[in-house]
Amino acid sequence: MNQGNLHADLSIKGTQERVDVLAANGRIRIERIVSLAHQSPEGFWYDQDEDEWVAVLSGAAIIEFDDDGTVVRLQVGDWLQIPAHRRHRVTWTTPDEPTVWLAVFYS
Amino acid sequence: MNQGNLHADLSIKGTQERVDVLAANGRIRIERIVSLAHQSPEGFWYDQDEDEWVAVLSGAAIIEFDDDGTVVRLQVGDWLQIPAHRRHRVTWTTPDEPTVWLAVFYS
Repeated sequence: MNQGNLHADLSIKGTQERVDVLAANGRIRIERIVSLAHQSPEGFWYDQDEDEWVAVLSGAAIIEFDDDGTVVRLQVGDWLQIPAHRRHRVTWTTPDEPTVWLAVFYS
Repeated sequence: MNQGNLHADLSIKGTQERVDVLAANGRIRIERIVSLAHQSPEGFWYDQDEDEWVAVLSGAAIIEFDDDGTVVRLQVGDWLQIPAHRRHRVTWTTPDEPTVWLAVFYS
């Protein structure tokens, strides 16, 4: 049986965010992402082919959208649906503790 | 923009669990479910056409599987993937606080 804990093993190796794929088939992918003071590179925008539903389970983060400049601050439990190709970037995650994201990508 | 907080408004009206559909299209459905001492009726088994990925975000629960009698105790952060048609039931959720589930159904 596939099982685990979303708050277990938050260790990050190297400089990138940690990404664990928890479930996937051809149409859906569920990822746990761990950030620690990570942010998207200056000038970089995610421009995804898939819809994304994302929640912050611990920590805190800020997402900015390209189209209308909306800035969304996410705290524990906050979730957001991001349509495919709505360009966005993560401008901040807290340095105080790991930020645990749960992201569901689907099309 | 579709957004919310997974731990907001946990009120339950009536005797059934509370189910909020957070996102859905023809192939995927993301639900927040709130239980408070709820359990599946005696002799009832979920037998679902869809795969399910489910996590407990607060509270605690116990799921039992029909095929091999496996009993899984879920605490905060624990997640589980349940294949379609693997019969299961919720035998217990804590009466001490709301149990918040995040469930992703997909096929």
